[in-house]
Amino acid sequence: MRSKDPSMRYLFQPRGVAVVGASHNETKIGYRLVQNIVAGRYTGVLYPVNPRGGEILGVPVYKSIEEVDGVLDTAYVAVPAEMVFDAVKSCARAKAKFAVIISSGFSEVGNSAEEKRIVSYARDHGIRVVGPNVFGIYSSSVSLNATFGPSEVKPGNVAIVTQSGAIGVAMIGKAKVENIGLSAIISVGNKSDVTEAGLLEYLARDRLSKVILMYIEGIRAGQELVAVLKVTTRKKPVIVIKSGRSERGAQAAASHTGSLAGEDRVFDDIIRQCGVIRAESLQEALDWCKFLADTTTPRGENATIITNGGGLGVLTADACEKYGVRLYDDAQDLKKTFSQIIPSFGSAKNPIDITGQATPEDYDRVLGAALRNPRIHAVACVGVQAGDFDARRFTEIAERRHADYRSVKPIVFSLFGGGNVESSIARLKEKDIPVFGDVYEATSFLGAVYAHYRNKARSTGTVEQADIDASRVQSVVDKARAEGRVFLLAHEAQEVMLAAGISIPRSRIARKLDQAVRYAEQIGYPVAMKVVSKDIVHKSDIGGVALDLEDKDEVVDAYEAILQNCRARRPGARIEGIEVCEMVETGVETIVGARRDPSFGPIVMFGLGGIYVEVLKDISFRAFPVTREEAMSMISEVHSYALLLGVRGANKKDIDTVETTIVKVGTVLQQCKDISDIEINPLMVYDYGQGATAVDVRILLSRSEEAA
Amino acid sequence: MRSKDPSMRYLFQPRGVAVVGASHNETKIGYRLVQNIVAGRYTGVLYPVNPRGGEILGVPVYKSIEEVDGVLDTAYVAVPAEMVFDAVKSCARAKAKFAVIISSGFSEVGNSAEEKRIVSYARDHGIRVVGPNVFGIYSSSVSLNATFGPSEVKPGNVAIVTQSGAIGVAMIGKAKVENIGLSAIISVGNKSDVTEAGLLEYLARDRLSKVILMYIEGIRAGQELVAVLKVTTRKKPVIVIKSGRSERGAQAAASHTGSLAGEDRVFDDIIRQCGVIRAESLQEALDWCKFLADTTTPRGENATIITNGGGLGVLTADACEKYGVRLYDDAQDLKKTFSQIIPSFGSAKNPIDITGQATPEDYDRVLGAALRNPRIHAVACVGVQAGDFDARRFTEIAERRHADYRSVKPIVFSLFGGGNVESSIARLKEKDIPVFGDVYEATSFLGAVYAHYRNKARSTGTVEQADIDASRVQSVVDKARAEGRVFLLAHEAQEVMLAAGISIPRSRIARKLDQAVRYAEQIGYPVAMKVVSKDIVHKSDIGGVALDLEDKDEVVDAYEAILQNCRARRPGARIEGIEVCEMVETGVETIVGARRDPSFGPIVMFGLGGIYVEVLKDISFRAFPVTREEAMSMISEVHSYALLLGVRGANKKDIDTVETTIVKVGTVLQQCKDISDIEINPLMVYDYGQGATAVDVRILLSRSEEAA
Repeated sequence: MRSKDPSMRYLFQPRGVAVVGASHNETKIGYRLVQNIVAGRYTGVLYPVNPRGGEILGVPVYKSIEEVDGVLDTAYVAVPAEMVFDAVKSCARAKAKFAVIISSGFSEVGNSAEEKRIVSYARDHGIRVVGPNVFGIYSSSVSLNATFGPSEVKPGNVAIVTQSGAIGVAMIGKAKVENIGLSAIISVGNKSDVTEAGLLEYLARDRLSKVILMYIEGIRAGQELVAVLKVTTRKKPVIVIKSGRSERGAQAAASHTGSLAGEDRVFDDIIRQCGVIRAESLQEALDWCKFLADTTTPRGENATIITNGGGLGVLTADACEKYGVRLYDDAQDLKKTFSQIIPSFGSAKNPIDITGQATPEDYDRVLGAALRNPRIHAVACVGVQAGDFDARRFTEIAERRHADYRSVKPIVFSLFGGGNVESSIARLKEKDIPVFGDVYEATSFLGAVYAHYRNKARSTGTVEQADIDASRVQSVVDKARAEGRVFLLAHEAQEVMLAAGISIPRSRIARKLDQAVRYAEQIGYPVAMKVVSKDIVHKSDIGGVALDLEDKDEVVDAYEAILQNCRARRPGARIEGIEVCEMVETGVETIVGARRDPSFGPIVMFGLGGIYVEVLKDISFRAFPVTREEAMSMISEVHSYALLLGVRGANKKDIDTVETTIVKVGTVLQQCKDISDIEINPLMVYDYGQGATAVDVRILLSRSEEAA
Repeated sequence: MRSKDPSMRYLFQPRGVAVVGASHNETKIGYRLVQNIVAGRYTGVLYPVNPRGGEILGVPVYKSIEEVDGVLDTAYVAVPAEMVFDAVKSCARAKAKFAVIISSGFSEVGNSAEEKRIVSYARDHGIRVVGPNVFGIYSSSVSLNATFGPSEVKPGNVAIVTQSGAIGVAMIGKAKVENIGLSAIISVGNKSDVTEAGLLEYLARDRLSKVILMYIEGIRAGQELVAVLKVTTRKKPVIVIKSGRSERGAQAAASHTGSLAGEDRVFDDIIRQCGVIRAESLQEALDWCKFLADTTTPRGENATIITNGGGLGVLTADACEKYGVRLYDDAQDLKKTFSQIIPSFGSAKNPIDITGQATPEDYDRVLGAALRNPRIHAVACVGVQAGDFDARRFTEIAERRHADYRSVKPIVFSLFGGGNVESSIARLKEKDIPVFGDVYEATSFLGAVYAHYRNKARSTGTVEQADIDASRVQSVVDKARAEGRVFLLAHEAQEVMLAAGISIPRSRIARKLDQAVRYAEQIGYPVAMKVVSKDIVHKSDIGGVALDLEDKDEVVDAYEAILQNCRARRPGARIEGIEVCEMVETGVETIVGARRDPSFGPIVMFGLGGIYVEVLKDISFRAFPVTREEAMSMISEVHSYALLLGVRGANKKDIDTVETTIVKVGTVLQQCKDISDIEINPLMVYDYGQGATAVDVRILLSRSEEAA
């Protein structure tokens, strides 16, 4: 089906569009769409459709879509929900390639069946569906404003994909107010067919779209999205705002969208893995977008602050740490570059402090020196309106310097003060020069610039492959399925580990006392013993476990004690035997897991054992498959990582084995569709070169309806 | 001296002010001051002073300050640094009560001696000094703009105390631009005499100042500041911006202010202890100040969000979690209040979603219901410019509702959209109604409102007292001093613990083998043994420690082994004996400490042992003395607190003993001025009711110059 899909070009650059449900009534959406398309001077042909015929705003109205006599690429459907299906049928007859269903009243109010029926019909007849429940599309390339939002849109280089129609419409207005030019804006609404992934694929290649902004409430088809995002973010910055960051917000999101928003922590890690830059608020996202399209990518990490106020410089340095902007640190080079041209009581350390007595010409000289120095890659020029600060003159200098270096290195300005400074800011903004009223805002923008720099620079890597014995895994799973279980028993889970090449403690199941003793001697003392029974879940609670058995006598005593405890406290339980196993040496306890995420499909997780994951929530996630770099970064980004590096005199641990274990566990999940969850807790990690042992493993199977 | 200090009234409400160094040259600060005082219509009498005499802007100039014939409360000194001392002498003869030294060229450029000479002379002659290196003072009560900043200042209710002149001057301008009214603004500059504490004491009582904003780079006289802040923050909100939050920023601050900025973590904890609300950026602080003066304090924690956009509601809920605003949660009551007046597909859960089809009248109805419900204590009304959103009508409703409820409960508005919405925001702002363009900004403000609510509500408590044997501590310290040491030996530190009533492991020092055996039997097996020697620091490294000795034989072997190891590896070391001590049972390892902070004086600290403090920096501080609530809050706010509550089946630990240990350790530091540092690491904490044991204690003495 995918290969026959019509190109997204027909959606963003249609030669002809119909408005099905075009209205003569000025208060109706069907009128507003026609009005905006006409007012926007769409370069293609508009076909309003309404059984009453006539004209709307001078455009002849077709009585039915079948009557349309020219090329029709996209049909906008704005009729009541119950009439949408018939409208889509007509679109099919008219050979439209896309149907954008503006109408609401579908899955967002529980009416999923009708939505599915429409999409299934459309797909069978070669039509792709956007929506339902959307506000339409604006696309600057053909000057098409097929939305019921504001009429005036400034064309430019920011593309917006939004899940919320309300926020999308408001963004069109807000973009206008903030003088942000748009290349396209589209809402995905119920995402019945076209999702963000498909749109991104187009926008990634679209020459006019230099920055992509997405507003997301919940993810569908996350695996596809991950793949597309990974490619897109190497080409252009992708900014995301996702609501439901907080626990309370996530609850509200679930109630608002009618679906589980997914764990925000997972979302956050995975979009970072994809190179997406996440903004916290709408304002922050728009602040970034405004200037990102026109800002060159720096050639290195050395940012330098120039300021006429020591305090402001310090605040900027604080902001740099918060937003991941690295300050240039070569004291010798900084001194050479600046010490001759700043006042004696200024500072040639970064932040470069040219003091409150600096004139605009001083600024110019210092800014010039910074721009000429090839080892300085980005400049934050932050000014405070001190006594005689000449804001007008400063503005001229900023304009000229920015014009000269716009394709060489990013410069961001921030000015703090009264009326003169405000006019400077307004004037620089008008010229699309990055300028802000607060150093935190300026630095947040520079942080986004650097996030994109790092995304472009990150190695593409190849995804790690693990060689696992998939058929051995499958036969374990099949056996459990045959017994109607949705979990594996401990020894079954261990079998899966062995099939994946993950070390487990040596162990054997004894069915008689003399076997237990023999196995213990083979494994080597000390050993542990555990009852094996499907009917006993919490084995240690009833005395079904014995640890640290040092010799034959202790094994004999323990064997009998375990059996006696089980018989006494779980009289009906079927006992399959007693597991005799190696006492695991102490290492650093970690947790490695993999599961099928409802949004993103197979994901892997990592954290340190004990309270780190459970209490401190110190955990990281990645969409699977992962590159080696991605697996390494998910290990190193947890706060407790220091424990693996060796703290307080301890040796460095075998981080490589942790990395390969993550890949192995992910591969098992990926290859065996029946498995929904794997958790090794703990994976005991030993000194570098000594490997790691999966001490306890829990594996769950998908419920049958999921497995299908 | 303090009791004879002139009242701060003479500074903020002077009857007469002199400008020493008044200038005829319009580019000079001495001219600008006169100009601003004249333009500002100061209600008292202005005496410009310049040996050349004449007139400036129509005001007669005095040839010397001694010639001033009326009441002179404050003299502004704006002459070159080398002439300041003589000017201050003249001020003394003229009986001025305050000298505000505008001039720079003192300690900020290393010239501390002259600064000290001036202050010492001034204090001896009953004059208090503001500065040097300041921009002057604005005080609305007498319409005095004695600054060289902008001429136009809007009088109002925000008082600003700033350490940076440059940022202060810019703030005057910025406040004007943002329509923020000021009651006073003053820069403290080098703080040679008057510090923030003294100014706050006045501003806390000042009727016109309803909000206080402080910009701080480093703290001096922190103990006094803590005391004043604790009182002030119960009366009115105190907002602080401190630069040097980050490591890099702190380095820059040290280089900028020429002094150590102190650990930001300590600053952050202690000002929170004082009830201060810390803003991150200048913009955030000004956003808060703008509306705080005029916003009523809520009567409870139940905030409610009303929105016409589900997504925007979710973003607001996210922001509430970030900024500590608690959402009202009584589903029954919310349903009763709202379900009849919102559309069926809206949501009567909090956020209340009245959907994009809501008219301003719908908003009004729902807002009215929220305002009338006495169990709802604050409302965030956040709107998105959906299709037919009538921004003008919304504005009228917002104005009326705000006017009716302004003294009853806080309402904050946020509007997101295009031009119409922007005009609404501008109009509401003009009327001082809290309104923002982004829900994060609106919620950040509401967070500040709630922070002040909680500060007012917090119990005053009484500071905890510990009964310690101070003379016993002193004699231990004296002995160490006599031996020229600046640290205590292990057994001396233990002696201090006993004097403070803190449990330590039972131990005795044996000088012979048979003593060692006897002590071990008294203490009870197992025991540990350690060599006691001033010459051996890392005892375990050379085999000077033996653990887990189970019986007499093991004690005998260990005694001989330790002696042999020490003789072999530290041949010259003087060995005082072998300590025999109780093997400490395992509990939760914590760290409790106290030290003299260069900014704040005695402070106490708490954290969990192992990697929590050292690697994860999970640690809390308080200025000492502390109330019981403060001590408890410093324990409960560390992330690893869960370990003391008992996780994964463990019992709750003896948190009360941790609390009393913090107080005891603080009291020792407070009462014994020779001690600069105490660290118990670990304090082993047992199950509730079982106490805690100080296993290892490190005590440092102040270097003699500090102790003085």
